[in-house]
Amino acid sequence: VTAIVPHPRAEAPIPVFAGFHRLNGNGEMTGTHWIEDGGYFLGPITITNTHSVGMAHHATIRWMLERYRATYHGRRPRWIMPVTAETFDGILNDINTLALGEADVLAALDTASDGPVAEGNTGGGTAMIAYGFKGGTGSASRRLVIGGRSYMVGVLVQANHGQRDWLTICGVPVGRHLAEEARGGETAERGSIIVIVATDIPMAPHQLKRMARRCSLGIGRNGTPGGNSSGDIFLAFSTANARPLGDPPDIHRIEMLDDDLFDPVYMAVVDGTEEAVINAMLAAEDMVGTIDGRERVEAVPTDRILRIMNRHGKPFP
Amino acid sequence: VTAIVPHPRAEAPIPVFAGFHRLNGNGEMTGTHWIEDGGYFLGPITITNTHSVGMAHHATIRWMLERYRATYHGRRPRWIMPVTAETFDGILNDINTLALGEADVLAALDTASDGPVAEGNTGGGTAMIAYGFKGGTGSASRRLVIGGRSYMVGVLVQANHGQRDWLTICGVPVGRHLAEEARGGETAERGSIIVIVATDIPMAPHQLKRMARRCSLGIGRNGTPGGNSSGDIFLAFSTANARPLGDPPDIHRIEMLDDDLFDPVYMAVVDGTEEAVINAMLAAEDMVGTIDGRERVEAVPTDRILRIMNRHGKPFP
Amino acid sequence: VTAIVPHPRAEAPIPVFAGFHRLNGNGEMTGTHWIEDGGYFLGPITITNTHSVGMAHHATIRWMLERYRATYHGRRPRWIMPVTAETFDGILNDINTLALGEADVLAALDTASDGPVAEGNTGGGTAMIAYGFKGGTGSASRRLVIGGRSYMVGVLVQANHGQRDWLTICGVPVGRHLAEEARGGETAERGSIIVIVATDIPMAPHQLKRMARRCSLGIGRNGTPGGNSSGDIFLAFSTANARPLGDPPDIHRIEMLDDDLFDPVYMAVVDGTEEAVINAMLAAEDMVGTIDGRERVEAVPTDRILRIMNRHGKPFP
Amino acid sequence: VTAIVPHPRAEAPIPVFAGFHRLNGNGEMTGTHWIEDGGYFLGPITITNTHSVGMAHHATIRWMLERYRATYHGRRPRWIMPVTAETFDGILNDINTLALGEADVLAALDTASDGPVAEGNTGGGTAMIAYGFKGGTGSASRRLVIGGRSYMVGVLVQANHGQRDWLTICGVPVGRHLAEEARGGETAERGSIIVIVATDIPMAPHQLKRMARRCSLGIGRNGTPGGNSSGDIFLAFSTANARPLGDPPDIHRIEMLDDDLFDPVYMAVVDGTEEAVINAMLAAEDMVGTIDGRERVEAVPTDRILRIMNRHGKPFP
Repeated sequence: VTAIVPHPRAEAPIPVFAGFHRLNGNGEMTGTHWIEDGGYFLGPITITNTHSVGMAHHATIRWMLERYRATYHGRRPRWIMPVTAETFDGILNDINTLALGEADVLAALDTASDGPVAEGNTGGGTAMIAYGFKGGTGSASRRLVIGGRSYMVGVLVQANHGQRDWLTICGVPVGRHLAEEARGGETAERGSIIVIVATDIPMAPHQLKRMARRCSLGIGRNGTPGGNSSGDIFLAFSTANARPLGDPPDIHRIEMLDDDLFDPVYMAVVDGTEEAVINAMLAAEDMVGTIDGRERVEAVPTDRILRIMNRHGKPFP
Repeated sequence: VTAIVPHPRAEAPIPVFAGFHRLNGNGEMTGTHWIEDGGYFLGPITITNTHSVGMAHHATIRWMLERYRATYHGRRPRWIMPVTAETFDGILNDINTLALGEADVLAALDTASDGPVAEGNTGGGTAMIAYGFKGGTGSASRRLVIGGRSYMVGVLVQANHGQRDWLTICGVPVGRHLAEEARGGETAERGSIIVIVATDIPMAPHQLKRMARRCSLGIGRNGTPGGNSSGDIFLAFSTANARPLGDPPDIHRIEMLDDDLFDPVYMAVVDGTEEAVINAMLAAEDMVGTIDGRERVEAVPTDRILRIMNRHGKPFP
Repeated sequence: VTAIVPHPRAEAPIPVFAGFHRLNGNGEMTGTHWIEDGGYFLGPITITNTHSVGMAHHATIRWMLERYRATYHGRRPRWIMPVTAETFDGILNDINTLALGEADVLAALDTASDGPVAEGNTGGGTAMIAYGFKGGTGSASRRLVIGGRSYMVGVLVQANHGQRDWLTICGVPVGRHLAEEARGGETAERGSIIVIVATDIPMAPHQLKRMARRCSLGIGRNGTPGGNSSGDIFLAFSTANARPLGDPPDIHRIEMLDDDLFDPVYMAVVDGTEEAVINAMLAAEDMVGTIDGRERVEAVPTDRILRIMNRHGKPFP
Repeated sequence: VTAIVPHPRAEAPIPVFAGFHRLNGNGEMTGTHWIEDGGYFLGPITITNTHSVGMAHHATIRWMLERYRATYHGRRPRWIMPVTAETFDGILNDINTLALGEADVLAALDTASDGPVAEGNTGGGTAMIAYGFKGGTGSASRRLVIGGRSYMVGVLVQANHGQRDWLTICGVPVGRHLAEEARGGETAERGSIIVIVATDIPMAPHQLKRMARRCSLGIGRNGTPGGNSSGDIFLAFSTANARPLGDPPDIHRIEMLDDDLFDPVYMAVVDGTEEAVINAMLAAEDMVGTIDGRERVEAVPTDRILRIMNRHGKPFP
């Protein structure tokens, strides 16, 4: 399970403005009803496999009850509705054992921090497959200067989508070239992709919803058309406009970016999403399945890909 | 936990066409991404309390793996994405103990049947509060004849919404009249309402979505404006067009009701929803909370209500 | 045609935060794509009949080019996308003559003001039919005090929906009682209802969308289930957070009401919508159709209705 | 104005199942409320410029009244709600003269036929600009064999979006390479893109909605992130399941493609959309603006682009 904690040092839950979009619905992300209507969520985001959504949800509630006990003390929390998303790892992982336990989730939440994201076969991404190669967790970010101030747009993906012949990197249809030399392997799509976009740019909920919608274009650049069996679900949130819950004023003042300045932000989301998927694949390593040891998914063959890309005018070293 | 199993005797999962609507998002119902895009769900619906969504989701997967083992045998199920919804019972139930266990959910699923629905303080509705009185599980149905054939529209609610002075029954603002004689009690809204509409009328997914939207009007008739802290979430499904998954033809033939015939269906949904909420309250019984034994919520005072309604030209016995 | 000009004295277009909802889509309201994504609209709202949407849209562009010429002078306006809505008046009006002309629309826009709204057979509502009686334009408002300041929630409807036996007033099913004594007349639903909610409460777009959704409950109280042939389309806007377009700062500061304070606002929308429909009917007058002079729709029979309501404990004079 | 008539030889309006999606809302497409709820539209689609939406809408109603007069004779049509979309051509066209007249629209509708689509500076696309070069109308199609039968997916775009440095063709960022040698010109985005997808594959409305969503990925492949000032609006329709309105049976039988067969269909939409935009640009010709004759937009420089693409391993002749 991968854990994202928007305000990791806060001692009380802080509403995080967010917006949601879905290219294809064959997947799960809980908490989106309130995100759509209330425009925010509270607490962490977890990303796990399809059959562990329940356990991740359950354990996140436990963790929030403990983490925010100072706040909740004496006042029972009104409701906790965790954001938990998933992709399907049933090729390499014996998903039906429901192996993820409460302790696994608590540990992931406890160790979430501000630092760089571990990529590849890690967290919720451990047993994922992308474009017929080993997929997993990936990230990318873009720095933007707006009105003299510097902001960040970060993207995290759990990449488990696409079939091999679709794979496109920097515009080069490497998947089709690889397919000419392919030997069996798992090529059909079995999965999904979750994209989480985080920024510190001040944005209102309806703006974050527009931002989330751009993830479709980002994943599209790598070749997927948004396959039928895929749950392509995107969440964008902003850590700006942070204020703790409780005793609020009648009228809030919030900040939001002027709409006319969104084009570079959108491009950062598209570029960052495209890159994060490739980063997930580059960081991933060969994996043998845990079911009966016969399934094996290889990491993307970097050498062959670089050769193909060089032939297409991409002179990578 | 309340369990609804659309095709209780099927030995393989049957896609159930469905449509979803939300009046207010402060609640959870899982599985709606695929319902919105795929137009169907597989397996049971469970309704529980806010903090038990994870456990109900988790246990439903276990149950489906076992229930459909003949189908799944030899072929790992591609994904299971249960529909689990909730309302908040933290006034009367010590919700933070996360007491609901896997066995509770499995038992509820095992005993789901075609028979009449137990109403009041039962299943997921056990500790719910509606309009400041004891709420819970309620149901109602309407029989419709279309083209000489008889169809059913059934409504099940888990009613946990509303504040006392809003309560309206058959158009009579009994809540305001009761408020004149009120003595303390829990009156502020703390909750939500889940409405499940089931029918055997053949309908396409986009029609079921329109049908689900009418639940707003049904709950509105009882006085709620859809309060801010409420998760008012509605699901409508049709058991028509049933066919098992697997080896499908290229092109499916489905049946759908002509749009021009929807008005009585919509009215059945509105009427049925209005009645199901009142039925939940009439069937509910006084309850003392399990937290410290100090919270106590009374059932709706039938005698006083009948007296008020008689004064308003509703000559109930 | 009915014209609503949110900032009638402004010499430059002012973005008006808005949110939109639709109970049933058999109708038209233009401009909603940008309202959904941008969260605002510019310029007036017009409400006309189904076949005059094009002319009202066309003429509104002309009017805006002239009205804001000082602003536009030297800079061609980037785009004008008017908000134009409609209901169907083809029973009483020979709608296929496309009689509404540019001058009619310009005149309506020129005379829009802050004053009270003319009700009944007026503007876009002239030839409308509601619940089998003469419908038309109606309005209602509620004053709310929030944090010591006074705000207004105003509702305007163009009521052209419902069939006679559905009509409910203050909870009394007068339509069913009238039906016992009915003599023919136009009873089947042919129409739609447009509801416009205006407020000066500061609200963000996603909050206005939630507010618009409450109009469903308001119209539901008068008996309609949202019929199939009806376009039940709702728009809510706030005149707060007003600032002219052009040379904007990078980051805007906006104000928004705390979510926890929305319940009375929602109730004002529900109550106001319910009342505005009845006001439209009470203000309307008998009308003979313009097609061949044979169609005649009567105003709601106030005397008989008061008698019915008195029998139901509503002691109106 | 560009006119699309789904069933050009029908003498009565035929409901056309359709689905709609919007990447960015800064644009107009009328008729989408009913498409979202009813799942179909009736009559033609027109695409024009931003300020001519009203006239195209108005004239389409006239055309339908005349075209379907045999059907309508004696029965006034209940409602006509045309589908009219737009992009902004105010750089090259003096849009504020509102020059499009009723006769122009009627002529376009009269001459719509089954044949190939005129591309480039034609119809609604006449004065459009795409990626800083001359844009306009483009089309592309893909043939798919499903279950032994042959089907078509056709795409028509009115391309008026993108800025020059974004332009990507077949994965090659030609826009960035061209920018190195650029000399002024109009590069900032001022516009939008409308995509219409037509197919004869049997699909239910919720499936067509999913199909429309894939247009985002198609336009994304050419480099746009879906700019803020762009109205990126997509409509997909199927001519299958055709039956005239009137005297319908109670229950309809419709056909729909199995969901598991959608991946090649989605890819056809993505590929076709990508190609249609490039086709629009390749067919377009240099144009001098009609406002004061000073604005001039050049067609995409095919020679330079081919040279750039050859360097990227795309050995076009």
